[in-house]
Amino acid sequence: MTATFADRLTAATQACGAPLCVGLDPLPDRIPALFGNARSDVRAVVDFCEAILDRAAGKCAALKPQLGFFEPYGPEGYALARDITAAARTRGVPVILDAKRGDIGTTAEGYARATLGPAPGFDADCVTLNPYLGLDSLTPFIDAAIAGGKGIAVLVRTSNPGARDIQDLDVDGAPLWTRVAEMLRPAMNAMTSASGWSNLMVVAGATWPEEARRIRAILPKALFLVPGYGAQGASAADAMAGLKDGFGGVVSASRSILYPPAAQAAGALAAWRAAIDDAIAAARAELSGA
Amino acid sequence: MTATFADRLTAATQACGAPLCVGLDPLPDRIPALFGNARSDVRAVVDFCEAILDRAAGKCAALKPQLGFFEPYGPEGYALARDITAAARTRGVPVILDAKRGDIGTTAEGYARATLGPAPGFDADCVTLNPYLGLDSLTPFIDAAIAGGKGIAVLVRTSNPGARDIQDLDVDGAPLWTRVAEMLRPAMNAMTSASGWSNLMVVAGATWPEEARRIRAILPKALFLVPGYGAQGASAADAMAGLKDGFGGVVSASRSILYPPAAQAAGALAAWRAAIDDAIAAARAELSGA
Repeated sequence: MTATFADRLTAATQACGAPLCVGLDPLPDRIPALFGNARSDVRAVVDFCEAILDRAAGKCAALKPQLGFFEPYGPEGYALARDITAAARTRGVPVILDAKRGDIGTTAEGYARATLGPAPGFDADCVTLNPYLGLDSLTPFIDAAIAGGKGIAVLVRTSNPGARDIQDLDVDGAPLWTRVAEMLRPAMNAMTSASGWSNLMVVAGATWPEEARRIRAILPKALFLVPGYGAQGASAADAMAGLKDGFGGVVSASRSILYPPAAQAAGALAAWRAAIDDAIAAARAELSGA
Repeated sequence: MTATFADRLTAATQACGAPLCVGLDPLPDRIPALFGNARSDVRAVVDFCEAILDRAAGKCAALKPQLGFFEPYGPEGYALARDITAAARTRGVPVILDAKRGDIGTTAEGYARATLGPAPGFDADCVTLNPYLGLDSLTPFIDAAIAGGKGIAVLVRTSNPGARDIQDLDVDGAPLWTRVAEMLRPAMNAMTSASGWSNLMVVAGATWPEEARRIRAILPKALFLVPGYGAQGASAADAMAGLKDGFGGVVSASRSILYPPAAQAAGALAAWRAAIDDAIAAARAELSGA
Protein backbone atom coordinates (compact mmCIF):
# COMPACT_ATOMS: atom_id res chain seq x y z
CA MET A 1 0.00 0.00 0.00
CA THR A 2 1.35 3.42 -0.93
CA ALA A 3 1.91 5.77 1.98
CA THR A 4 -1.01 8.13 2.57
CA PHE A 5 -1.54 11.22 4.72
CA ALA A 6 -2.13 9.19 7.91
CA ASP A 7 1.05 7.19 7.31
CA ARG A 8 3.09 10.32 6.70
CA LEU A 9 1.66 12.01 9.78
CA THR A 10 2.30 8.95 11.94
CA ALA A 11 5.90 8.68 10.69
CA ALA A 12 6.53 12.40 11.25
CA THR A 13 5.05 12.16 14.76
CA GLN A 14 7.38 9.26 15.54
CA ALA A 15 10.40 11.07 14.08
CA CYS A 16 9.83 14.26 16.05
CA GLY A 17 8.75 12.45 19.21
CA ALA A 18 5.57 14.44 19.77
CA PRO A 19 2.23 15.05 18.00
CA LEU A 20 3.08 18.71 17.47
CA CYS A 21 1.48 20.63 14.61
CA VAL A 22 2.87 24.11 14.04
CA GLY A 23 0.09 26.46 13.05
CA LEU A 24 1.31 29.05 10.57
CA ASP A 25 -0.66 32.22 11.36
CA PRO A 26 1.19 35.18 9.84
CA LEU A 27 -0.35 38.06 11.80
CA PRO A 28 0.77 41.37 10.29
CA ASP A 29 0.84 43.13 13.66
CA ARG A 30 3.03 40.50 15.31
CA ILE A 31 5.63 39.65 12.68
CA PRO A 32 8.84 41.19 14.08
CA ALA A 33 10.26 44.28 12.38
CA LEU A 34 13.39 42.17 11.76
CA PHE A 35 11.52 40.83 8.73
CA GLY A 36 10.34 44.23 7.51
CA ASN A 37 6.89 45.79 7.73
CA ALA A 38 4.37 42.98 7.33
CA ARG A 39 1.48 45.44 7.23
CA SER A 40 2.64 46.99 3.97
CA ASP A 41 5.09 44.52 2.43
CA VAL A 42 4.15 40.92 1.68
CA ARG A 43 7.87 40.17 1.30
CA ALA A 44 8.20 40.42 5.08
CA VAL A 45 5.47 37.80 5.41
CA VAL A 46 7.23 35.53 2.92
CA ASP A 47 10.53 35.80 4.79
CA PHE A 48 8.83 35.18 8.14
CA CYS A 49 7.00 32.06 6.90
CA GLU A 50 10.15 30.65 5.34
CA ALA A 51 12.11 31.29 8.52
CA ILE A 52 9.44 29.50 10.60
CA LEU A 53 9.48 26.52 8.23
CA ASP A 54 13.27 26.44 8.56
CA ARG A 55 12.96 26.15 12.37
CA ALA A 56 10.03 23.70 12.32
CA ALA A 57 11.13 21.23 9.62
CA GLY A 58 12.07 17.92 11.22
CA LYS A 59 10.87 19.11 14.61
CA CYS A 60 7.13 18.84 14.16
CA ALA A 61 4.61 16.31 12.89
CA ALA A 62 2.82 18.76 10.60
CA LEU A 63 2.52 22.36 9.47
CA LYS A 64 -0.90 24.02 9.40
CA PRO A 65 -1.00 27.18 7.28
CA GLN A 66 -4.12 29.17 8.15
CA LEU A 67 -5.43 30.55 4.84
CA GLY A 68 -7.45 33.19 6.68
CA PHE A 69 -4.17 34.93 7.52
CA PHE A 70 -2.82 34.74 3.96
CA GLU A 71 -5.88 35.86 1.99
CA PRO A 72 -5.90 39.39 3.47
CA TYR A 73 -2.66 39.96 1.55
CA GLY A 74 -4.58 39.34 -1.68
CA PRO A 75 -3.41 37.10 -4.53
CA GLU A 76 0.20 37.48 -3.34
CA GLY A 77 -0.76 36.06 0.04
CA TYR A 78 -2.68 33.24 -1.61
CA ALA A 79 0.38 32.44 -3.73
CA LEU A 80 2.60 32.52 -0.65
CA ALA A 81 0.40 30.01 1.16
CA ARG A 82 0.71 27.71 -1.83
CA ASP A 83 4.47 28.19 -2.08
CA ILE A 84 5.04 27.50 1.61
CA THR A 85 2.89 24.36 1.30
CA ALA A 86 5.11 23.16 -1.54
CA ALA A 87 8.29 24.03 0.38
CA ALA A 88 7.10 22.16 3.47
CA ARG A 89 6.20 19.03 1.49
CA THR A 90 9.60 19.12 -0.23
CA ARG A 91 11.16 19.07 3.22
CA GLY A 92 9.01 16.13 4.28
CA VAL A 93 6.64 18.08 6.53
CA PRO A 94 2.98 17.01 6.10
CA VAL A 95 0.77 20.03 5.48
CA ILE A 96 -2.76 20.43 6.85
CA LEU A 97 -4.20 23.38 4.95
CA ASP A 98 -6.56 25.21 7.28
CA ALA A 99 -9.12 26.51 4.79
CA LYS A 100 -12.46 25.42 6.36
CA ARG A 101 -14.00 25.13 2.92
CA GLY A 102 -17.48 23.76 2.35
CA ASP A 103 -19.64 23.80 -0.75
CA ILE A 104 -21.66 21.47 -2.96
CA GLY A 105 -21.36 19.52 -6.19
CA THR A 106 -18.97 20.83 -8.80
CA THR A 107 -18.04 23.75 -6.52
CA ALA A 108 -16.82 21.28 -3.90
CA GLU A 109 -14.93 19.48 -6.66
CA GLY A 110 -13.32 22.81 -7.52
CA TYR A 111 -12.22 23.40 -3.93
CA ALA A 112 -10.95 19.82 -3.72
CA ARG A 113 -8.78 20.39 -6.80
CA ALA A 114 -7.62 23.77 -5.48
CA THR A 115 -6.56 22.44 -2.07
CA LEU A 116 -5.58 18.78 -2.52
CA GLY A 117 -4.81 18.69 -6.25
CA PRO A 118 -1.42 19.23 -7.89
CA ALA A 119 -0.27 22.61 -9.22
CA PRO A 120 -1.88 25.04 -9.81
CA GLY A 121 -3.55 23.55 -6.69
CA PHE A 122 -1.97 23.57 -3.22
CA ASP A 123 -1.23 19.81 -3.25
CA ALA A 124 -1.72 19.90 0.55
CA ASP A 125 -1.72 16.60 2.48
CA CYS A 126 -5.02 17.44 4.15
CA VAL A 127 -7.58 20.27 4.18
CA THR A 128 -9.99 21.40 6.89
CA LEU A 129 -13.69 21.31 5.95
CA ASN A 130 -17.01 22.52 7.36
CA PRO A 131 -19.82 19.89 7.57
CA TYR A 132 -22.90 22.19 7.65
CA LEU A 133 -23.83 21.43 4.02
CA GLY A 134 -24.01 17.67 4.70
CA LEU A 135 -22.28 14.53 3.56
CA ASP A 136 -22.65 15.15 -0.18
CA SER A 137 -20.60 18.33 0.26
CA LEU A 138 -17.72 16.26 1.67
CA THR A 139 -17.84 13.48 -0.92
CA PRO A 140 -15.78 15.24 -3.62
CA PHE A 141 -13.06 15.86 -1.03
CA ILE A 142 -13.21 12.26 0.20
CA ASP A 143 -12.89 11.02 -3.38
CA ALA A 144 -9.96 13.34 -4.10
CA ALA A 145 -8.26 12.34 -0.85
CA ILE A 146 -8.62 8.63 -1.55
CA ALA A 147 -7.37 9.07 -5.12
CA GLY A 148 -4.35 11.14 -4.09
CA GLY A 149 -3.32 9.54 -0.80
CA LYS A 150 -4.49 12.66 1.05
CA GLY A 151 -6.71 13.38 4.04
CA ILE A 152 -9.57 15.64 5.08
CA ALA A 153 -10.12 17.27 8.50
CA VAL A 154 -13.77 17.91 9.29
CA LEU A 155 -14.92 20.34 11.97
CA VAL A 156 -16.81 18.44 14.67
CA ARG A 157 -16.45 20.42 17.92
CA THR A 158 -14.52 23.66 17.80
CA SER A 159 -12.75 25.47 20.64
CA ASN A 160 -14.50 28.88 20.50
CA PRO A 161 -17.26 29.91 22.96
CA GLY A 162 -19.75 30.32 20.09
CA ALA A 163 -19.37 26.62 19.27
CA ARG A 164 -22.27 26.21 21.69
CA ASP A 165 -24.69 28.11 19.44
CA ILE A 166 -25.05 25.37 16.82
CA GLN A 167 -22.73 22.46 17.60
CA ASP A 168 -24.13 21.85 21.10
CA LEU A 169 -27.82 22.01 20.21
CA ASP A 170 -29.67 19.01 21.58
CA VAL A 171 -30.73 16.49 18.92
CA ASP A 172 -32.69 13.62 20.44
CA GLY A 173 -30.79 13.81 23.72
CA ALA A 174 -27.27 14.24 22.32
CA PRO A 175 -25.43 17.31 21.11
CA LEU A 176 -25.40 17.98 17.38
CA TRP A 177 -21.66 17.41 17.13
CA THR A 178 -22.15 13.73 18.03
CA ARG A 179 -24.41 13.46 14.96
CA VAL A 180 -21.71 15.02 12.83
CA ALA A 181 -19.21 12.49 14.18
CA GLU A 182 -21.63 9.63 13.47
CA MET A 183 -22.19 10.91 9.94
CA LEU A 184 -18.46 10.60 9.33
CA ARG A 185 -18.13 6.94 10.34
CA PRO A 186 -18.46 5.50 6.80
CA ALA A 187 -15.83 7.97 5.58
CA MET A 188 -13.54 6.90 8.41
CA ASN A 189 -13.89 3.29 7.35
CA ALA A 190 -13.40 4.05 3.66
CA MET A 191 -10.28 6.16 4.18
CA THR A 192 -7.89 3.51 5.49
CA SER A 193 -4.11 3.74 5.70
CA ALA A 194 -1.28 1.27 6.27
CA SER A 195 -0.67 2.87 9.69
CA GLY A 196 -4.05 1.64 10.91
CA TRP A 197 -5.32 5.21 11.29
CA SER A 198 -7.91 6.62 8.92
CA ASN A 199 -7.17 9.49 6.55
CA LEU A 200 -10.32 11.05 7.98
CA MET A 201 -9.29 13.66 10.53
CA VAL A 202 -11.70 15.49 12.84
CA VAL A 203 -11.26 18.88 14.45
CA ALA A 204 -11.89 18.57 18.19
CA GLY A 205 -11.00 21.63 20.28
CA ALA A 206 -8.53 21.15 23.12
CA THR A 207 -10.65 23.23 25.44
CA TRP A 208 -13.16 20.37 25.66
CA PRO A 209 -11.28 17.14 26.59
CA GLU A 210 -14.42 15.32 27.71
CA GLU A 211 -15.91 15.88 24.29
CA ALA A 212 -12.72 14.70 22.61
CA ARG A 213 -13.11 11.39 24.44
CA ARG A 214 -16.71 11.06 23.24
CA ILE A 215 -15.68 11.76 19.66
CA ARG A 216 -12.90 9.17 20.00
CA ALA A 217 -15.49 6.58 21.11
CA ILE A 218 -17.60 7.28 18.01
CA LEU A 219 -14.64 7.45 15.61
CA PRO A 220 -11.96 5.08 16.97
CA LYS A 221 -9.70 5.23 13.91
CA ALA A 222 -10.04 8.91 13.00
CA LEU A 223 -7.09 11.24 13.33
CA PHE A 224 -7.64 14.25 15.62
CA LEU A 225 -6.66 17.80 14.86
CA VAL A 226 -6.69 19.59 18.19
CA PRO A 227 -6.60 23.40 18.20
CA GLY A 228 -6.70 25.55 21.32
CA TYR A 229 -3.46 24.38 22.94
CA GLY A 230 -0.91 26.98 24.09
CA ALA A 231 -2.00 30.55 23.61
CA GLN A 232 -5.71 29.52 23.66
CA GLY A 233 -5.22 28.17 27.19
CA ALA A 234 -5.71 24.39 27.12
CA SER A 235 -3.17 22.18 28.93
CA ALA A 236 -1.12 19.50 27.16
CA ALA A 237 -3.04 16.77 29.00
CA ASP A 238 -6.38 18.25 27.91
CA ALA A 239 -5.14 18.59 24.36
CA MET A 240 -4.01 14.94 24.26
CA ALA A 241 -7.30 13.57 25.64
CA GLY A 242 -8.46 12.22 22.28
CA LEU A 243 -5.10 10.76 21.21
CA LYS A 244 -3.82 7.25 21.95
CA ASP A 245 -0.32 7.07 23.45
CA GLY A 246 0.60 10.24 21.60
CA PHE A 247 -0.55 9.00 18.20
CA GLY A 248 -3.75 9.27 16.21
CA GLY A 249 -3.67 12.99 15.68
CA VAL A 250 -1.82 16.23 16.27
CA VAL A 251 -2.11 19.14 18.64
CA SER A 252 -1.79 22.50 16.96
CA ALA A 253 0.08 25.43 18.51
CA SER A 254 0.39 28.69 16.63
CA ARG A 255 1.05 31.86 18.59
CA SER A 256 2.95 30.23 21.45
CA ILE A 257 5.46 29.05 18.84
CA LEU A 258 5.44 31.90 16.32
CA TYR A 259 5.34 34.84 18.72
CA PRO A 260 6.91 33.90 22.09
CA PRO A 261 7.94 36.98 24.12
CA ALA A 262 11.67 36.22 23.65
CA ALA A 263 11.25 36.19 19.88
CA GLN A 264 9.26 39.41 19.92
CA ALA A 265 12.04 41.05 21.96
CA ALA A 266 14.88 39.72 19.76
CA GLY A 267 17.11 42.40 18.25
CA ALA A 268 18.75 40.14 15.67
CA LEU A 269 17.79 37.09 13.61
CA ALA A 270 20.08 34.75 15.56
CA ALA A 271 18.29 35.59 18.80
CA TRP A 272 14.91 35.28 17.06
CA ARG A 273 15.85 31.82 15.76
CA ALA A 274 16.96 30.68 19.22
CA ALA A 275 13.69 31.89 20.73
CA ILE A 276 11.61 30.00 18.14
CA ASP A 277 13.74 26.86 18.69
CA ASP A 278 13.11 27.15 22.44
CA ALA A 279 9.36 27.50 21.90
CA ILE A 280 9.25 24.44 19.65
CA ALA A 281 11.38 22.43 22.10
CA ALA A 282 9.11 23.40 25.00
CA ALA A 283 5.97 22.36 23.12
CA ARG A 284 7.55 19.06 22.04
CA ALA A 285 8.60 18.32 25.61
CA GLU A 286 5.11 19.05 26.96
CA LEU A 287 3.37 16.99 24.30
CA SER A 288 5.79 14.04 24.45
CA GLY A 289 5.53 13.76 28.24
CA ALA A 290 1.77 14.01 28.51
CA MET B 1 -27.71 57.72 5.68
CA THR B 2 -25.02 56.53 3.25
CA ALA B 3 -26.13 53.86 0.81
CA THR B 4 -25.28 50.33 1.93
CA PHE B 5 -25.35 46.92 0.26
CA ALA B 6 -29.11 46.49 0.74
CA ASP B 7 -29.75 49.93 -0.78
CA ARG B 8 -27.52 49.20 -3.77
CA LEU B 9 -29.13 45.80 -4.30
CA THR B 10 -32.63 47.26 -4.06
CA ALA B 11 -31.77 50.03 -6.54
CA ALA B 12 -30.18 47.57 -8.97
CA THR B 13 -33.21 45.28 -8.71
CA GLN B 14 -35.49 48.19 -9.52
CA ALA B 15 -33.30 49.32 -12.42
CA CYS B 16 -33.15 45.88 -14.04
CA GLY B 17 -36.78 45.07 -13.27
CA ALA B 18 -36.10 41.66 -11.74
CA PRO B 19 -34.27 40.21 -8.72
CA LEU B 20 -31.79 38.41 -10.97
CA CYS B 21 -28.34 37.55 -9.66
CA VAL B 22 -25.94 36.20 -12.27
CA GLY B 23 -23.78 33.48 -10.75
CA LEU B 24 -20.30 33.56 -12.23
CA ASP B 25 -19.17 29.92 -12.31
CA PRO B 26 -16.28 29.62 -14.79
CA LEU B 27 -16.28 25.87 -15.44
CA PRO B 28 -13.19 24.94 -17.45
CA ASP B 29 -15.01 22.19 -19.36
CA ARG B 30 -17.86 24.45 -20.45
CA ILE B 31 -16.18 27.70 -21.41
CA PRO B 32 -16.52 27.79 -25.23
CA ALA B 33 -13.40 27.26 -27.34
CA LEU B 34 -14.08 30.74 -28.76
CA PHE B 35 -12.28 32.04 -25.66
CA GLY B 36 -9.37 29.62 -25.87
CA ASN B 37 -8.66 26.51 -23.83
CA ALA B 38 -9.88 27.23 -20.29
CA ARG B 39 -8.41 23.96 -19.01
CA SER B 40 -4.84 25.04 -19.69
CA ASP B 41 -4.96 28.83 -20.09
CA VAL B 42 -6.33 31.13 -17.42
CA ARG B 43 -6.45 33.92 -20.03
CA ALA B 44 -9.46 32.15 -21.57
CA VAL B 45 -11.17 32.28 -18.19
CA VAL B 46 -10.38 35.98 -17.82
CA ASP B 47 -11.82 36.76 -21.26
CA PHE B 48 -14.93 34.68 -20.58
CA CYS B 49 -15.61 36.36 -17.23
CA GLU B 50 -15.12 39.83 -18.71
CA ALA B 51 -17.43 38.99 -21.60
CA ILE B 52 -20.12 37.77 -19.19
CA LEU B 53 -19.82 40.94 -17.10
CA ASP B 54 -20.19 42.95 -20.32
CA ARG B 55 -23.49 41.21 -21.09
CA ALA B 56 -24.79 41.28 -17.49
CA ALA B 57 -23.94 44.84 -16.41
CA GLY B 58 -27.11 46.90 -16.12
CA LYS B 59 -29.26 43.83 -16.76
CA CYS B 60 -29.00 42.14 -13.38
CA ALA B 61 -29.34 43.07 -9.72
CA ALA B 62 -26.05 41.44 -8.67
CA LEU B 63 -23.13 39.33 -9.78
CA LYS B 64 -22.10 36.32 -7.69
CA PRO B 65 -18.59 35.08 -8.44
CA GLN B 66 -18.17 31.56 -7.02
CA LEU B 67 -14.64 31.43 -5.57
CA GLY B 68 -14.68 27.63 -5.69
CA PHE B 69 -14.44 27.87 -9.48
CA PHE B 70 -11.60 30.42 -9.43
CA GLU B 71 -9.31 28.87 -6.81
CA PRO B 72 -8.57 25.74 -8.90
CA TYR B 73 -6.68 28.04 -11.27
CA GLY B 74 -4.34 28.91 -8.39
CA PRO B 75 -3.22 32.43 -7.46
CA GLU B 76 -4.04 33.64 -10.99
CA GLY B 77 -7.62 32.48 -10.55
CA TYR B 78 -7.81 34.12 -7.13
CA ALA B 79 -6.52 37.38 -8.66
CA LEU B 80 -9.05 37.12 -11.49
CA ALA B 81 -11.93 36.76 -9.03
CA ARG B 82 -10.73 39.93 -7.31
CA ASP B 83 -10.30 41.80 -10.59
CA ILE B 84 -13.74 40.87 -11.86
CA THR B 85 -15.22 41.97 -8.52
CA ALA B 86 -13.55 45.37 -8.93
CA ALA B 87 -14.69 45.63 -12.55
CA ALA B 88 -18.28 44.82 -11.62
CA ARG B 89 -18.38 47.38 -8.82
CA THR B 90 -16.92 50.01 -11.16
CA ARG B 91 -19.83 49.33 -13.49
CA GLY B 92 -22.33 49.65 -10.66
CA VAL B 93 -23.09 45.94 -10.28
CA PRO B 94 -23.30 44.84 -6.62
CA VAL B 95 -21.08 41.81 -6.01
CA ILE B 96 -21.98 38.93 -3.69
CA LEU B 97 -18.74 36.99 -3.29
CA ASP B 98 -19.64 33.33 -2.89
CA ALA B 99 -16.83 32.16 -0.61
CA LYS B 100 -18.70 30.32 2.18
CA ARG B 101 -16.01 31.27 4.66
CA GLY B 102 -16.27 30.53 8.36
CA ASP B 103 -13.66 30.73 11.08
CA ILE B 104 -13.10 32.25 14.52
CA GLY B 105 -11.50 35.27 16.18
CA THR B 106 -8.62 36.91 14.36
CA THR B 107 -8.91 34.36 11.53
CA ALA B 108 -12.47 35.51 10.88
CA GLU B 109 -11.19 39.10 11.00
CA GLY B 110 -8.64 38.11 8.36
CA TYR B 111 -11.29 36.64 6.07
CA ALA B 112 -13.48 39.71 6.63
CA ARG B 113 -10.62 41.97 5.50
CA ALA B 114 -9.84 39.67 2.56
CA THR B 115 -13.42 39.59 1.27
CA LEU B 116 -15.10 42.86 2.29
CA GLY B 117 -12.05 45.09 2.84
CA PRO B 118 -10.41 47.37 0.27
CA ALA B 119 -7.43 46.30 -1.86
CA PRO B 120 -5.58 44.02 -1.47
CA GLY B 121 -8.98 42.65 -0.34
CA PHE B 122 -11.87 41.91 -2.71
CA ASP B 123 -13.95 44.90 -1.57
CA ALA B 124 -17.05 42.81 -2.37
CA ASP B 125 -20.47 44.17 -1.44
CA CYS B 126 -21.38 40.98 0.40
CA VAL B 127 -19.80 37.61 1.21
CA THR B 128 -21.41 34.21 1.84
CA LEU B 129 -20.66 32.63 5.24
CA ASN B 130 -21.12 29.30 7.00
CA PRO B 131 -22.74 29.44 10.49
CA TYR B 132 -21.50 26.11 11.95
CA LEU B 133 -18.91 27.79 14.20
CA GLY B 134 -21.55 29.97 15.89
CA LEU B 135 -22.37 33.62 16.26
CA ASP B 136 -18.92 34.72 17.43
CA SER B 137 -17.52 33.48 14.12
CA LEU B 138 -19.88 35.85 12.27
CA THR B 139 -19.29 38.91 14.45
CA PRO B 140 -16.07 40.11 12.74
CA PHE B 141 -17.90 39.99 9.40
CA ILE B 142 -20.94 41.79 10.83
CA ASP B 143 -18.65 44.50 12.25
CA ALA B 144 -16.77 44.86 8.95
CA ALA B 145 -20.05 44.98 7.02
CA ILE B 146 -21.53 47.68 9.26
CA ALA B 147 -18.32 49.73 9.11
CA GLY B 148 -18.05 49.50 5.32
CA GLY B 149 -21.68 49.65 4.21
CA LYS B 150 -21.48 46.01 3.14
CA GLY B 151 -23.54 42.86 3.74
CA ILE B 152 -23.13 39.23 4.74
CA ALA B 153 -25.05 36.23 3.39
CA VAL B 154 -25.30 33.37 5.88
CA LEU B 155 -26.18 29.80 4.87
CA VAL B 156 -29.46 28.80 6.51
CA ARG B 157 -31.06 26.13 4.29
CA THR B 158 -29.16 25.04 1.21
CA SER B 159 -30.52 23.45 -1.97
CA ASN B 160 -28.50 20.20 -2.06
CA PRO B 161 -29.94 16.80 -1.01
CA GLY B 162 -27.30 16.49 1.75
CA ALA B 163 -28.69 19.62 3.41
CA ARG B 164 -30.90 17.15 5.26
CA ASP B 165 -27.96 15.54 7.08
CA ILE B 166 -27.31 18.44 9.46
CA GLN B 167 -29.60 21.36 8.65
CA ASP B 168 -32.82 19.37 9.02
CA LEU B 169 -31.96 17.62 12.29
CA ASP B 170 -34.76 18.00 14.80
CA VAL B 171 -33.98 20.38 17.68
CA ASP B 172 -36.84 20.56 20.17
CA GLY B 173 -39.44 19.93 17.50
CA ALA B 174 -38.07 22.26 14.81
CA PRO B 175 -35.36 21.75 12.22
CA LEU B 176 -31.89 23.05 13.04
CA TRP B 177 -32.03 25.65 10.25
CA THR B 178 -34.84 27.47 12.12
CA ARG B 179 -32.41 27.84 15.05
CA VAL B 180 -29.79 29.27 12.72
CA ALA B 181 -32.35 31.76 11.42
CA GLU B 182 -33.34 32.71 14.98
CA MET B 183 -29.68 33.16 15.93
CA LEU B 184 -29.40 35.75 13.16
CA ARG B 185 -32.26 37.97 14.29
CA PRO B 186 -30.13 40.42 16.32
CA ALA B 187 -27.75 40.78 13.37
CA MET B 188 -30.73 41.47 11.09
CA ASN B 189 -31.87 44.25 13.39
CA ALA B 190 -28.36 45.71 13.77
CA MET B 191 -27.64 45.77 10.03
CA THR B 192 -30.25 48.29 8.89
CA SER B 193 -30.32 50.16 5.59
CA ALA B 194 -32.19 53.15 4.21
CA SER B 195 -34.14 50.81 1.91
CA GLY B 196 -35.80 49.20 4.92
CA TRP B 197 -34.11 45.87 4.20
CA SER B 198 -31.35 44.57 6.40
CA ASN B 199 -27.78 44.12 5.18
CA LEU B 200 -28.08 40.62 6.62
CA MET B 201 -28.74 38.21 3.77
CA VAL B 202 -29.63 34.55 4.21
CA VAL B 203 -29.08 31.70 1.77
CA ALA B 204 -32.34 29.82 1.30
CA GLY B 205 -32.39 27.24 -1.50
CA ALA B 206 -35.02 27.63 -4.19
CA THR B 207 -35.77 23.92 -4.12
CA TRP B 208 -37.53 24.36 -0.76
CA PRO B 209 -40.12 27.21 -1.11
CA GLU B 210 -42.03 26.19 2.00
CA GLU B 211 -38.87 26.56 4.03
CA ALA B 212 -38.16 29.94 2.44
CA ARG B 213 -41.53 31.14 3.73
CA ARG B 214 -40.69 29.93 7.24
CA ILE B 215 -37.33 31.69 7.17
CA ARG B 216 -39.09 34.85 5.97
CA ALA B 217 -41.42 34.67 8.97
CA ILE B 218 -38.45 34.46 11.35
CA LEU B 219 -36.39 37.11 9.56
CA PRO B 220 -38.86 39.60 8.03
CA LYS B 221 -36.25 42.19 7.03
CA ALA B 222 -33.43 39.89 5.86
CA LEU B 223 -32.45 39.79 2.22
CA PHE B 224 -32.66 36.36 0.57
CA LEU B 225 -30.05 34.81 -1.66
CA VAL B 226 -31.82 32.01 -3.50
CA PRO B 227 -29.71 29.46 -5.34
CA GLY B 228 -31.09 26.46 -7.23
CA TYR B 229 -33.12 28.33 -9.86
CA GLY B 230 -32.66 27.45 -13.54
CA ALA B 231 -30.26 24.59 -14.14
CA GLN B 232 -30.85 23.22 -10.63
CA GLY B 233 -34.52 22.76 -11.47
CA ALA B 234 -36.57 25.12 -9.27
CA SER B 235 -39.32 27.20 -10.91
CA ALA B 236 -39.37 31.01 -10.82
CA ALA B 237 -42.39 30.95 -8.51
CA ASP B 238 -40.64 28.57 -6.11
CA ALA B 239 -37.51 30.69 -6.19
CA MET B 240 -39.47 33.87 -5.41
CA ALA B 241 -41.36 32.34 -2.45
CA GLY B 242 -39.30 34.19 0.16
CA LEU B 243 -39.27 37.56 -1.63
CA LYS B 244 -41.85 40.34 -1.26
CA ASP B 245 -43.22 41.72 -4.53
CA GLY B 246 -39.92 40.91 -6.21
CA PHE B 247 -37.79 42.72 -3.64
CA GLY B 248 -35.95 41.67 -0.50
CA GLY B 249 -33.44 39.41 -2.16
CA VAL B 250 -32.14 37.95 -5.38
CA VAL B 251 -32.49 34.68 -7.23
CA SER B 252 -29.22 33.34 -8.56
CA ALA B 253 -28.88 31.65 -11.93
CA SER B 254 -25.52 30.45 -13.15
CA ARG B 255 -25.39 27.73 -15.77
CA SER B 256 -28.70 28.59 -17.46
CA ILE B 257 -27.19 32.01 -18.20
CA LEU B 258 -23.51 31.21 -18.75
CA TYR B 259 -23.87 28.04 -20.78
CA PRO B 260 -27.20 27.99 -22.67
CA PRO B 261 -27.19 25.52 -25.59
CA ALA B 262 -27.24 28.33 -28.18
CA ALA B 263 -24.12 29.88 -26.67
CA GLN B 264 -22.35 26.54 -26.55
CA ALA B 265 -23.16 26.02 -30.24
CA ALA B 266 -22.10 29.53 -31.30
CA GLY B 267 -19.38 29.65 -33.92
CA ALA B 268 -18.50 33.31 -33.44
CA LEU B 269 -18.48 35.83 -30.61
CA ALA B 270 -21.41 37.81 -32.00
CA ALA B 271 -23.61 34.72 -31.89
CA TRP B 272 -22.33 33.87 -28.42
CA ARG B 273 -23.18 37.37 -27.18
CA ALA B 274 -26.69 37.16 -28.63
CA ALA B 275 -27.24 33.80 -26.93
CA ILE B 276 -26.13 35.14 -23.53
CA ASP B 277 -28.35 38.21 -24.00
CA ASP B 278 -31.29 35.93 -24.75
CA ALA B 279 -30.63 33.83 -21.65
CA ILE B 280 -30.45 36.93 -19.43
CA ALA B 281 -33.63 38.35 -21.01
CA ALA B 282 -35.47 35.06 -20.46
CA ALA B 283 -34.46 34.90 -16.79
CA ARG B 284 -35.43 38.55 -16.24
CA ALA B 285 -38.81 37.96 -17.85
CA GLU B 286 -39.50 34.90 -15.71
CA LEU B 287 -38.43 36.58 -12.50
CA SER B 288 -40.23 39.87 -13.17
CA GLY B 289 -43.52 38.17 -13.95
CA ALA B 290 -43.54 35.78 -11.01
